[in-house]
Amino acid sequence: MPDKQRESGRRKLLDQIRRTGPIPRIELSELTGISRATVTTITAELLQNGLIREVPRESAEPEGRRGRPRVDLKIDGASHLVVGAKISNNLISLVLLDFSGNQIGTLETEMTRAVFEAQELANVISNAVDQLAQSAGFALRDISGVGVGIAGIVDATRGFAYWSPSLKQRNVEFGNLLTQTLGLPAFIDNDANLVAVAEKTFGLGQAHSDFIVVTIESGVGMGLVIGNELYRGTRGCGAEFGHTKVHLDGALCRCGQRGCLEAYVADYALLREAMTVPGADPNVDPGTRIEALLSNAKAGEATAKSIVDRAGRMFALGLANLVNIFDPQLIILAGEQMQFDHLFADAVIAEMRKSIVQIDKAPPEVVIHKWGNLMWARGAAAYALDNVSEIALSGLNENAD
Amino acid sequence: MPDKQRESGRRKLLDQIRRTGPIPRIELSELTGISRATVTTITAELLQNGLIREVPRESAEPEGRRGRPRVDLKIDGASHLVVGAKISNNLISLVLLDFSGNQIGTLETEMTRAVFEAQELANVISNAVDQLAQSAGFALRDISGVGVGIAGIVDATRGFAYWSPSLKQRNVEFGNLLTQTLGLPAFIDNDANLVAVAEKTFGLGQAHSDFIVVTIESGVGMGLVIGNELYRGTRGCGAEFGHTKVHLDGALCRCGQRGCLEAYVADYALLREAMTVPGADPNVDPGTRIEALLSNAKAGEATAKSIVDRAGRMFALGLANLVNIFDPQLIILAGEQMQFDHLFADAVIAEMRKSIVQIDKAPPEVVIHKWGNLMWARGAAAYALDNVSEIALSGLNENAD
Repeated sequence: MPDKQRESGRRKLLDQIRRTGPIPRIELSELTGISRATVTTITAELLQNGLIREVPRESAEPEGRRGRPRVDLKIDGASHLVVGAKISNNLISLVLLDFSGNQIGTLETEMTRAVFEAQELANVISNAVDQLAQSAGFALRDISGVGVGIAGIVDATRGFAYWSPSLKQRNVEFGNLLTQTLGLPAFIDNDANLVAVAEKTFGLGQAHSDFIVVTIESGVGMGLVIGNELYRGTRGCGAEFGHTKVHLDGALCRCGQRGCLEAYVADYALLREAMTVPGADPNVDPGTRIEALLSNAKAGEATAKSIVDRAGRMFALGLANLVNIFDPQLIILAGEQMQFDHLFADAVIAEMRKSIVQIDKAPPEVVIHKWGNLMWARGAAAYALDNVSEIALSGLNENAD
Repeated sequence: MPDKQRESGRRKLLDQIRRTGPIPRIELSELTGISRATVTTITAELLQNGLIREVPRESAEPEGRRGRPRVDLKIDGASHLVVGAKISNNLISLVLLDFSGNQIGTLETEMTRAVFEAQELANVISNAVDQLAQSAGFALRDISGVGVGIAGIVDATRGFAYWSPSLKQRNVEFGNLLTQTLGLPAFIDNDANLVAVAEKTFGLGQAHSDFIVVTIESGVGMGLVIGNELYRGTRGCGAEFGHTKVHLDGALCRCGQRGCLEAYVADYALLREAMTVPGADPNVDPGTRIEALLSNAKAGEATAKSIVDRAGRMFALGLANLVNIFDPQLIILAGEQMQFDHLFADAVIAEMRKSIVQIDKAPPEVVIHKWGNLMWARGAAAYALDNVSEIALSGLNENAD
């Protein structure tokens, strides 16, 4: 069997066992389309290298049947540990997973500030990973890989951060820096991409090969899954949604350009408009002001309603454009719902449906999925799991040579 | 070898031979990664069924070497003929290709009108295909398949036209209707998609796995190639660009909605604005008026320039949004250049570059590619070639059962 085919067979089987194990060999062959003989060969390798193990079948069949005892295969959870981390504004959130994907620990700590020198941020992450490992009874060296989601423009394949609101510098080889600081393989990606990975691995995306995740935090992010694969653009950093333009020469965006979607729907955009109202107090903290704005809008106060309604309509316009371009089966709106109620409203979804090309076909399903920061971190951990599996499997390849 | 693997091997080899033949078997194995033994088995099948043939190697090697005479493989051009057709406003353009992709005839005729009952349009196409076949010395029954590109929203896989400006009815099984009318397999797709297929098969896309084609005619179309495959959306009709919104509650579009890109850049949008100028004569024909507008703009006349410049800036905004979302290697702007000079201008490309997310990375290459209607028809023929190959290969499969 050519090397490439064997490699892809190993990856397929490991993924399948992780998703559906404990599972008998014959079912693996049926689900993956890999021949029984090859399943036998490859699973023997995986067993020998401790990535999976055999467990007795829990069966409804009567005891005492003849023949060999029946066994299923499952991931050996203890074979590798991974950590996923999500960097938010002033918070770092981490989860520790075993090789089966079971969550065995979490950690959330405030950071002293929101923007760091690259090495400083690497140190903050490294310390948090260490602390999480220890709290679960492990050492840093027991971890096989760390995935990190940050906001901004990231070329994940190269571990390269073109720009992130969390980093003072532009163009940082942050993946490498983090790997050196941790002494462990580290993998970075745009945070919204990792929410899409989390949905694919643990969430609503498990049943869909093609979907769009739109995330709303202080910015607007997007993760795009096409044919079961995360779409990263042809040059590493596609799927940028928050800075698509919804108005020529429109409102000023924090990125310096005009008319970006974020310049209409982000918190700062709402606050900027709210400050126009005579008597608005700039000394009240932003969180309180945004809450007041949203509750005034809900109560029907005209100006507040006008501000919030336009944000919703602009968001609907952006979503409609995504639907026209991708014709997705499913759109997942992911965020902490409370804060973004106004964007997740039925009226916004209805406006989106009116703004797509009107043909006699059901519009895509839109699902709202509440995510705390720890769920974003699970996406980062799932990404680490993929990469660590890849490393473990390529190790097998070298042994086979 | 499992059936699926054999099927995909046949398709790969046939494609490779069409692209690079005449070619020796050993090189086929190297280029496709298919083992030499399998190449030998599959090409024997293809030979036996007359899809390819052997030709003596034209070689620089000295004559008189021992061993078997060396042969290359090439497509047997005569084994199948296909026709591609492009339906424009009042014109039908057709090309006749042999199975190697060589063009052996063309036909272009005016149609009596622009909008047809579905059966009428099927008759028009059928008559034109018949006429083209006869003019090249063949009969309709000698054609193996016909590809047709029409404007509108088409689910190509089902041959289903949700809506087309060329059809009076919505929701027409136009592929089936055309197949029945012709008595030959017919395949329909959105016309801009077929320009992307043409670029992939014959044009600039041959050297790129991922690119976007934006077409400008009376409307704005898009074809999207990701990983060497045409992207059709997850539900059959994605990549709709002309009706993405560039302005909330903006200019009225012919589709009935407001703020679509087309409502700013299409001919009718320019003319609508030009009519605002006092003294504009509604009795002058649209073609003449648009020419006057564009030449006045070039001459620096302020109002004309304002109209044309805004169209260009809106077009740049739309392109920038595509770049942010897809991060493509290459954008091909395809159309008959003369008429769309103003949208293909350096200033428009520069504006697009300013409007994408600014990171330290070269913006995608933008190439302008003039296309007459016959080139669009070649795209439709390439699509027919793919489908006819598929049918021929699945025939082999049935024989093998």
